Amino acid sequence: MKAAVVTVGDEILIGQIIDTNSEFIAKALDKIGIGVYEMLSISDDRQHILDTLASQQDRADVVIITGGLGPTKDDVTKKTFCDYFEDHLVRDNALEAHVIELIEKAMKRPASQMNKDQALVPSRATILHNAVGTAPGMWMEKGSTIFISLPGVPYEMKYIVEQEIIPRLVERFERPYILHKTILTYGQGESLVAERIEDWEDNLPEFIRLAYLPSPGRVKLRLSGKGADEAFLKSSIESEAEKLKDLIGDIIVGYDEGETMEVMLGRMLTSKNKTLAAAESCTGGKIAQMLTTAPGSSTFFKGGIVTYSVESKVEVLGVDKAIIDKNDVVSAEVAEAMAMRAKTIFGTDYAVATTGNAGPTKEEGKAEVGTVFIAFATPNGVFSERLDLGQPREKVIDRAANKVLEKIYQEILKN
Amino acid sequence: MKAAVVTVGDEILIGQIIDTNSEFIAKALDKIGIGVYEMLSISDDRQHILDTLASQQDRADVVIITGGLGPTKDDVTKKTFCDYFEDHLVRDNALEAHVIELIEKAMKRPASQMNKDQALVPSRATILHNAVGTAPGMWMEKGSTIFISLPGVPYEMKYIVEQEIIPRLVERFERPYILHKTILTYGQGESLVAERIEDWEDNLPEFIRLAYLPSPGRVKLRLSGKGADEAFLKSSIESEAEKLKDLIGDIIVGYDEGETMEVMLGRMLTSKNKTLAAAESCTGGKIAQMLTTAPGSSTFFKGGIVTYSVESKVEVLGVDKAIIDKNDVVSAEVAEAMAMRAKTIFGTDYAVATTGNAGPTKEEGKAEVGTVFIAFATPNGVFSERLDLGQPREKVIDRAANKVLEKIYQEILKN
Repeated sequence: MKAAVVTVGDEILIGQIIDTNSEFIAKALDKIGIGVYEMLSISDDRQHILDTLASQQDRADVVIITGGLGPTKDDVTKKTFCDYFEDHLVRDNALEAHVIELIEKAMKRPASQMNKDQALVPSRATILHNAVGTAPGMWMEKGSTIFISLPGVPYEMKYIVEQEIIPRLVERFERPYILHKTILTYGQGESLVAERIEDWEDNLPEFIRLAYLPSPGRVKLRLSGKGADEAFLKSSIESEAEKLKDLIGDIIVGYDEGETMEVMLGRMLTSKNKTLAAAESCTGGKIAQMLTTAPGSSTFFKGGIVTYSVESKVEVLGVDKAIIDKNDVVSAEVAEAMAMRAKTIFGTDYAVATTGNAGPTKEEGKAEVGTVFIAFATPNGVFSERLDLGQPREKVIDRAANKVLEKIYQEILKN
Repeated sequence: MKAAVVTVGDEILIGQIIDTNSEFIAKALDKIGIGVYEMLSISDDRQHILDTLASQQDRADVVIITGGLGPTKDDVTKKTFCDYFEDHLVRDNALEAHVIELIEKAMKRPASQMNKDQALVPSRATILHNAVGTAPGMWMEKGSTIFISLPGVPYEMKYIVEQEIIPRLVERFERPYILHKTILTYGQGESLVAERIEDWEDNLPEFIRLAYLPSPGRVKLRLSGKGADEAFLKSSIESEAEKLKDLIGDIIVGYDEGETMEVMLGRMLTSKNKTLAAAESCTGGKIAQMLTTAPGSSTFFKGGIVTYSVESKVEVLGVDKAIIDKNDVVSAEVAEAMAMRAKTIFGTDYAVATTGNAGPTKEEGKAEVGTVFIAFATPNGVFSERLDLGQPREKVIDRAANKVLEKIYQEILKN
């Protein structure tokens, strides 16, 4: 089974908002074995919508369209949807009662005619109940394709996908299993990893695909398998992952999708009953923010200090001014002093620190753009490392923060 | 001129990552008057790529494709791109030298054959220099369409778009001006706003379009105009915005020129020569991280303290333990004390603070999941606000951080 996801809205096409609906729908369909083969974002334009519906018909088994269902004039999807199926709009009384109730409750005023007209739906559509909003989902079929129109507001879309669409698809279709396993590696580039596993990759079975997902400092390898026999699929993927462990076990640091470095680090610290703090200059809170993304992070992360000026390094963090004057604020000595102060202040087992010039400009006599010192205070002493990360600014901040998490992970692993 | 944006990669289609490249490209093209009429995400599959290129040819003037240019076997875009133009790959010596230099500098090892093969490019392609990575951009033409292939790594894509593509498009084509003005309204629903401005909307000139962008509690109205005469376009949009002010001035709270709140806040603080600090609990460094994303943030942002435990709120930030014991750690009183301490410690004009339960679990007798107090210390005193943000955790952190920036912006604006 193949699905397509279509988002309708000029706000996406001019870059005003990022489409996150498609990702949610893709994940939900993937989980029940329906692969999305294409995503499209198109304009709030009648002809463009008609062309897109026609181009997907008999190509996709299911087409899910979000957006353009609001009550206002720029929302043209419903009317166009109706035209495509050569249908006409009729008033659905149950739906109108729902709209009236919702508006009165939420807005504390009577529903207007524009609100009530949300209850106009194509006569042959199956209505998908939207408990959290006034625009219903609509399910219609033409040729071999199911077309589903949903509101674009994310939580309304999510509600209808989870409560109405997934159960219907599961009941109606036999679907293959789709399984993924993601292997997280650290410290070697994409091409080096690829060379090390080339022979293995060439011999992967037909039904398993490998993807490389590189990001600064790390490469994720994703194995995806599709088939009717879930147990066989699972054991095949596991056996390929085992072979991979033999080949590149030295750089594998974890498995699976949600398994970011910060999650693994948190789990390790929690299991060893150890704590961590951070003193950040050029990473500006990025390390703290990454560490606190996961639930339960207060168990191991005691806090951080972002000292963006020399004064605050001295006055808030308590770094000795003489160390800064002697070595420059971007130096191994200052990074190490910052880490030690953070360890002391927060009373933790470990602390990390960053100081650098993330760019874009270099001041007279100061550190080069992209130069960052990262430091680690541990129960066995303090150490630091110099990174030369170039530009742009965003990359420097990202790489430095990732490198810090990777290094401290390795350090704690050793102890 | 019409453009299409295509992202290649199974990781998008299975919902593993959200495509942010398309938004960046759309924004960059929109700024120079080129409208994106369609975005597509397709799989790493030769036939799918070929079909997509063919379907866009002579339909779009410019097609920008990202992804699938890495050195590994799952990256098929370059080979397919070459096939589509009936071209063959040749080795570009300057490019190979660049790859070798970059690998040796970053990885501290010699470039492998796989790295060097990044210098294989279609013989007729115009090479778009990628100073920050090893995969170049490629520009080729067929029929009336320009096809551009770019690496999918966001900062590499951004570099090539800004440095190589935009200048070339600007030089080569006469483009209309595209202007947007977004009006922020608060407190009334989409359909009520629509009813109040219905007559005005019906009489908008042909070249100006209106879009409604609703989100919980607010509606943005976006006016978009397109035309050859920039001054006329600008004055027409301004005059329509003025009429809107007469109609719904009571709910208009501001205008959003496409800039993020952190950028606007930074600019205002810098121009007023004022400084800011942050004390964060449940936002975990997110506010500091947002504020330091922009270059030059050290001028106005003095630093932040992330206090993730009760002890660190007392010992590091210096909040009176009695206030926490009396009111609970998630309370208006603690938030206000945190903001005041941050203002004192960093010696700034303003300070913001957050304390809350971002979830997912609630402990016995503690604050409800999603409850956050945000506080603001200003030269005129301190104040706070309670937010009930529900779940998921990620949304709580994001909304709380955004709300803090929005509130402090409004506060400083008043002074």
